[in-house]
Amino acid sequence: MRALVFDDTLHFDANRPAPTTGPGEVLVRVRLAGICNTDVEILRGYHGFKGVLGHEFVGEIIEDGVVRRVVGEISAVSPGSRSRTWFERSQDADRSTLGIRRRDGAFADWLVLPRENLHLVPDNVTDEEAVFVEPLAAGCGILELAHIKPTDDVRVLGDGKLGLLCAMALAPAAGRLTVIGKHENKLAIARGFGARTLRLAEWTGERNADVMVDCTGSAGGIDIARRMLRPRGTLVMKSTYASAGATAEAATTLFNTLTMAVVEEQVLIGSRCGPFAAALRLLAERRVDVRPLIDARFPLEQGVEAMARAQAPGTLKVLLQVA
Amino acid sequence: MRALVFDDTLHFDANRPAPTTGPGEVLVRVRLAGICNTDVEILRGYHGFKGVLGHEFVGEIIEDGVVRRVVGEISAVSPGSRSRTWFERSQDADRSTLGIRRRDGAFADWLVLPRENLHLVPDNVTDEEAVFVEPLAAGCGILELAHIKPTDDVRVLGDGKLGLLCAMALAPAAGRLTVIGKHENKLAIARGFGARTLRLAEWTGERNADVMVDCTGSAGGIDIARRMLRPRGTLVMKSTYASAGATAEAATTLFNTLTMAVVEEQVLIGSRCGPFAAALRLLAERRVDVRPLIDARFPLEQGVEAMARAQAPGTLKVLLQVA
Repeated sequence: MRALVFDDTLHFDANRPAPTTGPGEVLVRVRLAGICNTDVEILRGYHGFKGVLGHEFVGEIIEDGVVRRVVGEISAVSPGSRSRTWFERSQDADRSTLGIRRRDGAFADWLVLPRENLHLVPDNVTDEEAVFVEPLAAGCGILELAHIKPTDDVRVLGDGKLGLLCAMALAPAAGRLTVIGKHENKLAIARGFGARTLRLAEWTGERNADVMVDCTGSAGGIDIARRMLRPRGTLVMKSTYASAGATAEAATTLFNTLTMAVVEEQVLIGSRCGPFAAALRLLAERRVDVRPLIDARFPLEQGVEAMARAQAPGTLKVLLQVA
Repeated sequence: MRALVFDDTLHFDANRPAPTTGPGEVLVRVRLAGICNTDVEILRGYHGFKGVLGHEFVGEIIEDGVVRRVVGEISAVSPGSRSRTWFERSQDADRSTLGIRRRDGAFADWLVLPRENLHLVPDNVTDEEAVFVEPLAAGCGILELAHIKPTDDVRVLGDGKLGLLCAMALAPAAGRLTVIGKHENKLAIARGFGARTLRLAEWTGERNADVMVDCTGSAGGIDIARRMLRPRGTLVMKSTYASAGATAEAATTLFNTLTMAVVEEQVLIGSRCGPFAAALRLLAERRVDVRPLIDARFPLEQGVEAMARAQAPGTLKVLLQVA
């Protein structure tokens, strides 16, 4: 089969052996896939992964003689595992993770996942929408962990893909939603779904957000986000923080951040993945429109070029057309 | 009046002018006071405070011709302030703080606080117990912020005064309570009120606490506490973290800590002060016994010696007998 492979180098392989199924697993024919920042980080050594990249996809399976479109949760466990919920699977010590850890990914004609990981895609959700289910679910995950009240002033720090998807997921719940970023074109997308926007450079130091969501992906994000938050407010951490090259100055800032969180009795909530069902519902009920996030689309054969495009500054979602 | 004063040097002053009351304020005759680690930190420059030290006390006022014993919340605001709850007062930008910020403290014959800050002490609570209300309230504050369930495995990291008082406050709520520390004599106190204990050196790496409370007061505490916590568990930060001398290694550790909190979707809750009413209730209903925490008692005139004793390794609560 065709596949985009990383094994010290990134390359297109026209003759990769197709994956085989184990107990409880099914073959999925990939239709469309999305490039995530994690895919880019893998090229830089993240997780030490070697194999077929990719974990955001929409595909199809044959079941009861019918072709069914599916999306899939990325953390897979064996049928004997005690992990039964999506969150338990994502924490299972023996899990594999599609395109990230011990399991070939979605940038290929075929992938394999346990049947329990798959969710059927409603007919009124297009492939271009369904391919966003995995990152949109991560945004919905915030609502699983934080109680967002209809009077809450919620601000998302970061106007990249993650920030915009989190903001879309939060928009129906928040009393007032603001996306804070640096890029006019991305902030325009936020205004398109009804969010207020603020350029970070124009922040005047006022700090009365009830809920902050840090989607900056940078080490300094948590400090800025906390300083925008009221006492007893909630800061949702969606970014992971690369520790390589951390400086003493960064330590001083971070200790101050945590000390001020104690003094002001603020809550920091770590949030990573989220429920696919909630994201599919948002799409099926037309409550969110993810299509403005699509930046470019490449055929699978041009996967190397697509990955380069995904790394260009300011790029939003780059898709890989597989079938 | 007599007072223990810090103004570049710590000294006993036999002829300090008594404080005067402003609108809404009352004079309190101090009976017994307690030395807190914050008092020690002030000697090292914390908050740049100069004046009469001390914020843990039990005293008396004359009201309607009757002598009434009182304890007092330490954050004071003017009668015109919009801050009405103890927490709002503790966050008020214009607040003064007894013995810490712009208000002389409790290591003296007299102190002044707004009447709204004072709580009457029930007759069955002795002075030696009431003097613990302020730090015990800080322990009760955890229950204001974190939902501790009767099935929760709760572990307090740190067996100092703060750790033991937090553990006492949590004991009635927790399903299973463990104090983790380094000092056999302090862990014995924890066993005295029914907690399990664990010496930190004997921790075997198991990590299934539902709730961790970091009372170490050291920068490394948060990392150890997080590693003892299950995914989606709650870490209560009771310590503030001195950033002076922070190293790049500390930054690396701290970024890893936060990244793992995201990956495992854990919650970090900052908690500082707490409700006096809850602490007084615990004492009046004899649900906690704080007396084993008393290490030594000095007359006010020997305040300098008392402060030295409070700084000796392994010392628990040192009291100053004022009246």
